[in-house]
Amino acid sequence: MNYELVSGGGVTSATGFVAGVAQAAIKKADGYDLTLLYSTVPAVGAGVFTQNVFRAAPVIISQQNLSVNDTEGTIRGIVVNSGCANACTGQQGLLDAQQMAQEAAKVFACEETEILVASTGVIGVNLPMERVIAGIHEAGNDLSAANGGLAAQAIMTTDTVSKEIAIKFYLGEKEITLGGMAKGSGMIHPNMATMLGFITTDAAISGRCLKKSLQEAVGKSFNMVTVDGDCSTNDSLFVLANGLAENQLIMDENSQEYQIFTRALTYVCTELAKMIARDGEGATKLMEVRVINAPNPEDARLGAKAIAGSNLVKAALFGEDANWGRIVCALGYSGASFQPMLVDVYLGDLLVAQNGGGLAFDEEMAARILQEDTVIITVDMKQGSSQATAWGCDLTYDYVKINGEYRT
Amino acid sequence: MNYELVSGGGVTSATGFVAGVAQAAIKKADGYDLTLLYSTVPAVGAGVFTQNVFRAAPVIISQQNLSVNDTEGTIRGIVVNSGCANACTGQQGLLDAQQMAQEAAKVFACEETEILVASTGVIGVNLPMERVIAGIHEAGNDLSAANGGLAAQAIMTTDTVSKEIAIKFYLGEKEITLGGMAKGSGMIHPNMATMLGFITTDAAISGRCLKKSLQEAVGKSFNMVTVDGDCSTNDSLFVLANGLAENQLIMDENSQEYQIFTRALTYVCTELAKMIARDGEGATKLMEVRVINAPNPEDARLGAKAIAGSNLVKAALFGEDANWGRIVCALGYSGASFQPMLVDVYLGDLLVAQNGGGLAFDEEMAARILQEDTVIITVDMKQGSSQATAWGCDLTYDYVKINGEYRT
Repeated sequence: MNYELVSGGGVTSATGFVAGVAQAAIKKADGYDLTLLYSTVPAVGAGVFTQNVFRAAPVIISQQNLSVNDTEGTIRGIVVNSGCANACTGQQGLLDAQQMAQEAAKVFACEETEILVASTGVIGVNLPMERVIAGIHEAGNDLSAANGGLAAQAIMTTDTVSKEIAIKFYLGEKEITLGGMAKGSGMIHPNMATMLGFITTDAAISGRCLKKSLQEAVGKSFNMVTVDGDCSTNDSLFVLANGLAENQLIMDENSQEYQIFTRALTYVCTELAKMIARDGEGATKLMEVRVINAPNPEDARLGAKAIAGSNLVKAALFGEDANWGRIVCALGYSGASFQPMLVDVYLGDLLVAQNGGGLAFDEEMAARILQEDTVIITVDMKQGSSQATAWGCDLTYDYVKINGEYRT
Repeated sequence: MNYELVSGGGVTSATGFVAGVAQAAIKKADGYDLTLLYSTVPAVGAGVFTQNVFRAAPVIISQQNLSVNDTEGTIRGIVVNSGCANACTGQQGLLDAQQMAQEAAKVFACEETEILVASTGVIGVNLPMERVIAGIHEAGNDLSAANGGLAAQAIMTTDTVSKEIAIKFYLGEKEITLGGMAKGSGMIHPNMATMLGFITTDAAISGRCLKKSLQEAVGKSFNMVTVDGDCSTNDSLFVLANGLAENQLIMDENSQEYQIFTRALTYVCTELAKMIARDGEGATKLMEVRVINAPNPEDARLGAKAIAGSNLVKAALFGEDANWGRIVCALGYSGASFQPMLVDVYLGDLLVAQNGGGLAFDEEMAARILQEDTVIITVDMKQGSSQATAWGCDLTYDYVKINGEYRT
């Protein structure tokens, strides 16, 4: 599916969405670290969250507010800070996350339960609430659709580039805009990661359909990204839909319109997920792992994720070493059920293992393929018709450096 | 339990075990790479193996031979090569592993089904059988109890130190010797890893009891070690018991003697497992993670393993950064069930997190604790009486270097 990309588009490309940012000195370094996102008309919202038992305070508050507003279509805005995760911060952390919602609600003149909250940064430290509150009001003084790019920067932590995209597509005769922004970049892993994602659309869709559509999209995108196998306390992905495109309200998950919308949402989520993988901490390459002709979708998914997540595969990718043995090894411990003696492995288009065993291949060509900044690994199980794709990155000296010195 | 250590002891310390080594030029570098281990009288044997779907040829042959000899007490020897894993090598690989058993059987004048085979090294490459066969016969020309240390060296790949231990203990009035050797050192992971272990004892024990005892011991030792989360095609741990100590045959797994033997076997396995963790590829530190007062043993085990295996915890350990948030984060995604708000975390004896949240602690003392070459992390769940211990190591630049350039 090819979509029309909105040039420079992001989280404020869809009609009726505006953003504001502030420097609240939550991060140690200078820079924007407080973001407001607002829908000028009431929106429906949906979210997916970390599976970690330790859920950060903003996750708990956002889940509560989504649950309160589940079927009523009244999420109005999101407040995000970077530099402090507000995780493992006890009762004070919950009060702080709630106060972030309250202050944002003052700015937007709405209910505090219509606000979603997200935080990212160091765990176990309380928020500097005085500066956070000042930052929320400062950000609220300049809410504009022109601030989408700044918002994408303000949510970054160890990310080296901001991540945003917006596309246009049609539902009937109505042009829909769907856009978003995300941040990684360590701890990126299936079941979410220290990943924050914010997606907005002017499509008209019921809250129930939006929730289901988001879950479908996440299963094929964010949940198929892995950087280091860790899964954070704060991962959150939100989508808001405000209906300003005036398409006929999507209420039926079996309708063609629902399918079109979900494909578009999956596309945006996948592109953001790939940006996160490529910008994994210290990464120099994007790894795309395709498992094809698997006995069933779950075996394909398990295999692709295990390969993309293997430290040994990731280190070999960094070393540009065509060590296919590590690929089949990861497949072998993935939990997927399959016949090993049927499996073929390709680096790019180059066959490097056949029927579960080695074969002579052109090492120079393999080296050239591994030097590319995107490396595609294909595992052909030759025992079914299911497939799955996962994304990861290489494991580098810089990953160790970044994570050895994160707090200092 | 304190055991009497045999000075310089290892796999040939128990009465009746001898070893021989040879340089068969299987490794690229010079050095011993072919090992024979022999019991001068018939022994019973047991083994545990990789859970990887891709099982290397020597694993398949050894499993077959153990199954043939399961209750008959007639394992006589083991042949091991380093430098080539003989994994993903198809039908030829199986023939080669079988031939290794056949040639060793000629040396020992026994049945080929009385031989166990192990290989470690690069995946997907066939063995240079002419040199392997010559090496087996060369090693067979000098079988001696004095060769235990050389054997421990000959099985090494990227290990930086050889790993061996032997202890003495009593069963009734009979002195028992139990010793072994192991090699790591990348891909070390629960469910075994590219780990080879060889344990010998002169205790008299039935094959059935030996098998059960080994499984108990492995669950608390080798399966609680993690270096990089990968799980290899070749992992094998063998134990041979030849009865020359002339204790009363252990046939009842409820007997006191069985318990004494199993505690001793667990001790030897644990010490070898810790040596493997400390010598993980590129590692500079041993990490010991104790989860205590957990609701049940499985939750303790899941939590300890996830913490020891977390790349972020491992990188923080390398950076000597008291980032306890990563410890609780790993606990949170481990799959263990627990109340996060009760959890305390200690580095050494220093409390760094309490009731699931941060507290002020002496950062200088934390830094001193993290500078030690063994770092003990204790997680007190305060919600039960179960416990588990896992071992790992830090994640370093050298890990990336070693694994980026392994084949070259």
